[in-house]
Amino acid sequence: MIEFFKMEGAGNDYVYVDLRENAKKILQLNTELLPRLCDRRYGIGGDGLVIIGPSDRAAGRMWMWNADGSASAMCGNALRCVSLYLSADARKKDLIVESGVGLHRAEIISRDENVMSGSVRLDMGRPLFEAHIIPFSRESKDLPGRPVRYQHGLKGLDEGHVLSMGNPHCVIFVDDPDTVDIESIGPRIENDPAFPERTNVEFVSIKADGSLYQRTWERGSGETLACGSGACAALVAAASAGLSGRTNTVHLRGGDLFIEWNETVHMTGPARLVFRGQIDEREFPLFSKDV
Amino acid sequence: MIEFFKMEGAGNDYVYVDLRENAKKILQLNTELLPRLCDRRYGIGGDGLVIIGPSDRAAGRMWMWNADGSASAMCGNALRCVSLYLSADARKKDLIVESGVGLHRAEIISRDENVMSGSVRLDMGRPLFEAHIIPFSRESKDLPGRPVRYQHGLKGLDEGHVLSMGNPHCVIFVDDPDTVDIESIGPRIENDPAFPERTNVEFVSIKADGSLYQRTWERGSGETLACGSGACAALVAAASAGLSGRTNTVHLRGGDLFIEWNETVHMTGPARLVFRGQIDEREFPLFSKDV
Repeated sequence: MIEFFKMEGAGNDYVYVDLRENAKKILQLNTELLPRLCDRRYGIGGDGLVIIGPSDRAAGRMWMWNADGSASAMCGNALRCVSLYLSADARKKDLIVESGVGLHRAEIISRDENVMSGSVRLDMGRPLFEAHIIPFSRESKDLPGRPVRYQHGLKGLDEGHVLSMGNPHCVIFVDDPDTVDIESIGPRIENDPAFPERTNVEFVSIKADGSLYQRTWERGSGETLACGSGACAALVAAASAGLSGRTNTVHLRGGDLFIEWNETVHMTGPARLVFRGQIDEREFPLFSKDV
Repeated sequence: MIEFFKMEGAGNDYVYVDLRENAKKILQLNTELLPRLCDRRYGIGGDGLVIIGPSDRAAGRMWMWNADGSASAMCGNALRCVSLYLSADARKKDLIVESGVGLHRAEIISRDENVMSGSVRLDMGRPLFEAHIIPFSRESKDLPGRPVRYQHGLKGLDEGHVLSMGNPHCVIFVDDPDTVDIESIGPRIENDPAFPERTNVEFVSIKADGSLYQRTWERGSGETLACGSGACAALVAAASAGLSGRTNTVHLRGGDLFIEWNETVHMTGPARLVFRGQIDEREFPLFSKDV
């Protein structure tokens, strides 16, 4: 039997396996099994698989794969869940967690001592505006704070704020994100030639109370309920453009995230254990017998 | 902790809880919690909840609820799963299982002895053609074997074979079910005034090898991957109309079912344990403390 657990953060849900005591299994993962494992009817169901491994520099290291079997370096929603899980073990409120892009400081802001559920504040690093880093292939001397034009033909949606939060983002301010035809517009901007490595796209409005509301088109995934780095990018773009202060709540379809931008960007949001479970290795041979 | 398991049959997946040793909890079920429990991101995920209770007439009794919290009397895909589960306990290949509509004979045709996965043959009862039983409010003297007209305005789809498999069905033969605009046509037929209790709708074609291919619009649920009683209705309608023999394979989006029509209709199809799990009652108070 393989022990696993299911956690979600702002509706972004993964299957989690703790292999800190058996790290070599990480190398034996059969990624071709992940579509079946993540299928919501024929498998456990989830946006992907997260394996928690040991780290000699942090409380643990997060390894991630998407539901299609492709590897992923980092996801803020998953990192909050990993942080909460590791903090329960370590009984620490403040810890360092490693992801595929480096080390992150995590603070457990609140924690229900009975069930594994709480609020976690993560250091998401510095926003970067250099065109070759984002990467963005057109003029960007006005960055940050000014929208740049990337494409013809999308009336009212032909310019956005571009920046990197470790991955590329294009933030577009609109009156009402819910009226954007995201299935049609999202992929056109994602694949615009101005973004040589494609881009995530955020459609953002400023609500009457000054908070932000956002829908996210994730590079390679389509619309998602919540994108942590996208919420950070939205706040950075809004503050740069004078549309928001440097701390604000970002409402996403899956839940709310609280973003603060000082030197680095901090994101505070929910993390929750949904259930624990066991799968039979004979039915789901997730790990090869030998490498 | 509440112990549960997840099973699926032809892609129709439920959360299962065995309360044979604690039957009074069935009366304490908080059905208002089911939408959250069945949510595929914030809960365990599934088409509904099945509780297995004791029966003084059978190996066990299946109690069912849909994901919206409404009660359901019977589902062939779930009954195969319950039968396989009870047979593993009883080490029997032939058993009686009770559902909300009565007693069913179940035969375990094949079973993987390592994992809980197999093929189950269920007696689904007799098809009934009497208009007041279906119920169908228009002339039906030609039943069975002749399509009847129920509605104006749906060119080429304005007549179907109507019958009851314990629930109402309207079977419509078409050239290619995949080209039917089921989201638009399904609800129009479901709610046609000729069906006073609405109806399930099956769009069925005869494949080159003589087998049937079917898409199902389920009353109250919309399109589903597989509907056991619908597959029985499709074979009965096809055999009545001379389009098929009395035994045939019905291909559904979620898998294949093998249907035999003698006095009663037998359905043979897959059932499989996907995983076992535990949820915390403090997070999911599925049962009240007292009634």
